[in-house]
Amino acid sequence: MPNSTAQPKLQPKPARDSSVIMTEIVLPTHANALGSIFGGQVMSWIDIAGAIAAGRHARKVVVTASIDALHFVAPIKVGHVVHIKAMVNFASRTSMEVGVRVDSENPVTGEIHHTAKAYLTFVGLDEHGRPTPVPPVLTESAEEKRRFEEARKRREARVRLAEEIKKGSD
Amino acid sequence: MPNSTAQPKLQPKPARDSSVIMTEIVLPTHANALGSIFGGQVMSWIDIAGAIAAGRHARKVVVTASIDALHFVAPIKVGHVVHIKAMVNFASRTSMEVGVRVDSENPVTGEIHHTAKAYLTFVGLDEHGRPTPVPPVLTESAEEKRRFEEARKRREARVRLAEEIKKGSD
Amino acid sequence: MPNSTAQPKLQPKPARDSSVIMTEIVLPTHANALGSIFGGQVMSWIDIAGAIAAGRHARKVVVTASIDALHFVAPIKVGHVVHIKAMVNFASRTSMEVGVRVDSENPVTGEIHHTAKAYLTFVGLDEHGRPTPVPPVLTESAEEKRRFEEARKRREARVRLAEEIKKGSD
Amino acid sequence: MPNSTAQPKLQPKPARDSSVIMTEIVLPTHANALGSIFGGQVMSWIDIAGAIAAGRHARKVVVTASIDALHFVAPIKVGHVVHIKAMVNFASRTSMEVGVRVDSENPVTGEIHHTAKAYLTFVGLDEHGRPTPVPPVLTESAEEKRRFEEARKRREARVRLAEEIKKGSD
Amino acid sequence: MPNSTAQPKLQPKPARDSSVIMTEIVLPTHANALGSIFGGQVMSWIDIAGAIAAGRHARKVVVTASIDALHFVAPIKVGHVVHIKAMVNFASRTSMEVGVRVDSENPVTGEIHHTAKAYLTFVGLDEHGRPTPVPPVLTESAEEKRRFEEARKRREARVRLAEEIKKGSD
Amino acid sequence: MPNSTAQPKLQPKPARDSSVIMTEIVLPTHANALGSIFGGQVMSWIDIAGAIAAGRHARKVVVTASIDALHFVAPIKVGHVVHIKAMVNFASRTSMEVGVRVDSENPVTGEIHHTAKAYLTFVGLDEHGRPTPVPPVLTESAEEKRRFEEARKRREARVRLAEEIKKGSD
Repeated sequence: MPNSTAQPKLQPKPARDSSVIMTEIVLPTHANALGSIFGGQVMSWIDIAGAIAAGRHARKVVVTASIDALHFVAPIKVGHVVHIKAMVNFASRTSMEVGVRVDSENPVTGEIHHTAKAYLTFVGLDEHGRPTPVPPVLTESAEEKRRFEEARKRREARVRLAEEIKKGSD
Repeated sequence: MPNSTAQPKLQPKPARDSSVIMTEIVLPTHANALGSIFGGQVMSWIDIAGAIAAGRHARKVVVTASIDALHFVAPIKVGHVVHIKAMVNFASRTSMEVGVRVDSENPVTGEIHHTAKAYLTFVGLDEHGRPTPVPPVLTESAEEKRRFEEARKRREARVRLAEEIKKGSD
Repeated sequence: MPNSTAQPKLQPKPARDSSVIMTEIVLPTHANALGSIFGGQVMSWIDIAGAIAAGRHARKVVVTASIDALHFVAPIKVGHVVHIKAMVNFASRTSMEVGVRVDSENPVTGEIHHTAKAYLTFVGLDEHGRPTPVPPVLTESAEEKRRFEEARKRREARVRLAEEIKKGSD
Repeated sequence: MPNSTAQPKLQPKPARDSSVIMTEIVLPTHANALGSIFGGQVMSWIDIAGAIAAGRHARKVVVTASIDALHFVAPIKVGHVVHIKAMVNFASRTSMEVGVRVDSENPVTGEIHHTAKAYLTFVGLDEHGRPTPVPPVLTESAEEKRRFEEARKRREARVRLAEEIKKGSD
Repeated sequence: MPNSTAQPKLQPKPARDSSVIMTEIVLPTHANALGSIFGGQVMSWIDIAGAIAAGRHARKVVVTASIDALHFVAPIKVGHVVHIKAMVNFASRTSMEVGVRVDSENPVTGEIHHTAKAYLTFVGLDEHGRPTPVPPVLTESAEEKRRFEEARKRREARVRLAEEIKKGSD
Repeated sequence: MPNSTAQPKLQPKPARDSSVIMTEIVLPTHANALGSIFGGQVMSWIDIAGAIAAGRHARKVVVTASIDALHFVAPIKVGHVVHIKAMVNFASRTSMEVGVRVDSENPVTGEIHHTAKAYLTFVGLDEHGRPTPVPPVLTESAEEKRRFEEARKRREARVRLAEEIKKGSD
């Protein structure tokens, strides 16, 4: 991908301004023969929530660059309500890490189960579809600083992994 | 619809426990040739958000009984993010009024426009699909008490209107 | 919304030329856990039928401006056939009122139930998305004259209501 | 498929009672990169209209057995309105032939183009999914008698063809 | 449709280079009340597979011109896996015949049933949506030569039929 | 999840018998404002292809347990054809690892780009939705043995990670 030219540094923005909450109902069309949701449907909602959070931080069109390993802790059933929460944790020059949390609620009993947690990276794009700088993330509370620091470490691991994959495919 | 038999009164529940936040992106398939969203797509999201709020209050399957007049204040465009917020305002024996507010956000400029406001009524159903009692709504703040009172008045107006319609169709 | 500039008066068109009939089958994906259709799905079909009728009258792209109160008289079940009929009742300068009637048919017994009746207003748009004049409605039969007159009164009530809402939100 | 057991002859029903009118708008998701509708989308609407007409005649669940050759006379574009009309022409013991006609309308100019004409056969099914008798078709006008006669001939040709295909695949 | 102007002859391409394999799962939303897939859904998949095969041969946008008679040999049920295979058999100046075969697999027993076989014609389009030459089909094996020859005969029959239909609609 | 009771060992099955090929076209509804596909749409196709491969190996209903980190190497555009290939690499008692490879093809130029590679685990379920044994994977070629061995190592890493996550959430 071409380098984007030098630009004045963008104004940092608070992580919490990117916060997104989505709520969905699981319909029969989302589920297999035993009434359990397809994993890919959950991944799709995670990606949309993440893209909205990243787009709100960057105020640009964004594109998914990667998603970290995703474990489904508990199955989600037809008729359940799914809660998806997303927020930007960290931003490097043109990319952002977004954390997404998925919980499911049995609408009749009110029981809530944690379903999955995911970290995705998105890249901000200019009007020609090229990577473009995004604002740094402003951390305020201790909690936000901890998330930022963990995300920074995950990013370093991802960059290393991407380089290994690149070598491996040569 | 048949009367449901006498039952011990249900425990009142706070209005705010039913609160739902939905976030959606407007895709090309949601919009007309000028890139403006179909009104029916917004109505559909309003109904889903309202049904989740009512279902969470009733802890039952619920069905839409009516929606009050709906004015679209500003058009929503492809690529915009739509925010839908719903909360139960009032409950009578087997029905609930839910208030839903829709705002749209230009993801690039961050501008937010109020789009529509709606009041829907939902009926709680038992496992045979018959109306069944739902918990009363507990109001705490002055704001909640005001909403409850306004919803009660709208309900009286709706009941009168439904009776007139019934007569009119005879 | 900006005023559209003066234009030669458009040729009036008969109400019946805008008439639209839609037929849909209720699929599992349209329905809740008890097999009853989501109210929002019906609203979405009402809006599409209304938009086609208004578009046929105006021969322009049209956008939904409002929908009057909607009461669901009887539930519609998965597998049922839904009949939606729409026709323009009345047109003022740039807007039209469309009446929509929804009936559902049990395909096995042939029983038909009246489900809902709705009045929507649509605005004709020019190629820049601005309101643009639409043809007056020509009434011929006594029935058409009655509908026109009733629609004209509903429009006056809607304009009053929209003004009150505007004041209320200041 | 197993023979269904002898049953008292069903009451004949007029062809016109099965008549179905569907109206659809072509959305971007229905079309290719040049804005022309996918042929398969039109086939899908033809099948749904045909199934509703056959189901209304049989008052049974029905399943598509075949569709005759289909020629697309003119392309349909995004934003156009599609009119689909279906009616039962002929019924043999457990199967029905339905004729479907598709026209497209440019909503702005009002121009209408004939797009396709199709003949489909549907089989009536009992609650175990086995073929079950359907009512004979009552013809009244000369036009209906002609359609009935032509459909009877097409059926004979189809039966011969199906037998040849069966032999060919042995 | 206007004649496309004379162009240097395109390089012939092997039939097998156009080969497409699609795999789909039947969801509840694809099926009727007895859990059998809608015929139109199968037709839609057939058309998509055929369009991809034709597009790969032509390296152009393509549009469906016709589909030959289609017989559904066996019903497909919700939860089954559907296999769709498509390949170009023959090309004349601007059109191609594609053969498509559909089989369904019960995912639990592994049983596979032949469901349908279809022949479609597609036309290659230039950037203005006008018919444009497509490469001839190169046949190598005896099998490919047989398919080519049969497709050529079907094309002659189709052209005759289209002419008769044209006369009939005058 | 409850232990499934002891059962006679299942017959091993060759990896290649689970092989699945899916082909999809990117429609406008799958893409953002710049015409690039949503990452979540690709994840959804990956999950479906993986679930079909795992279901074919297990001859059971299967559910997604996890997906390893996924990097999008190149963007996919509206109008492109997407090729998804999936095969079971390895099976432990009740779970299977499936490898999925995604490539995209520009239908006009014929250029093919590698887009993503993913490893997912699926669990076989009995009719009560409980984990149930699946057949071991039979490896024949050196290539298959290598894949099996790598998948076995990834599984060990995943189990360790899942345990750490479990501890971390206490």
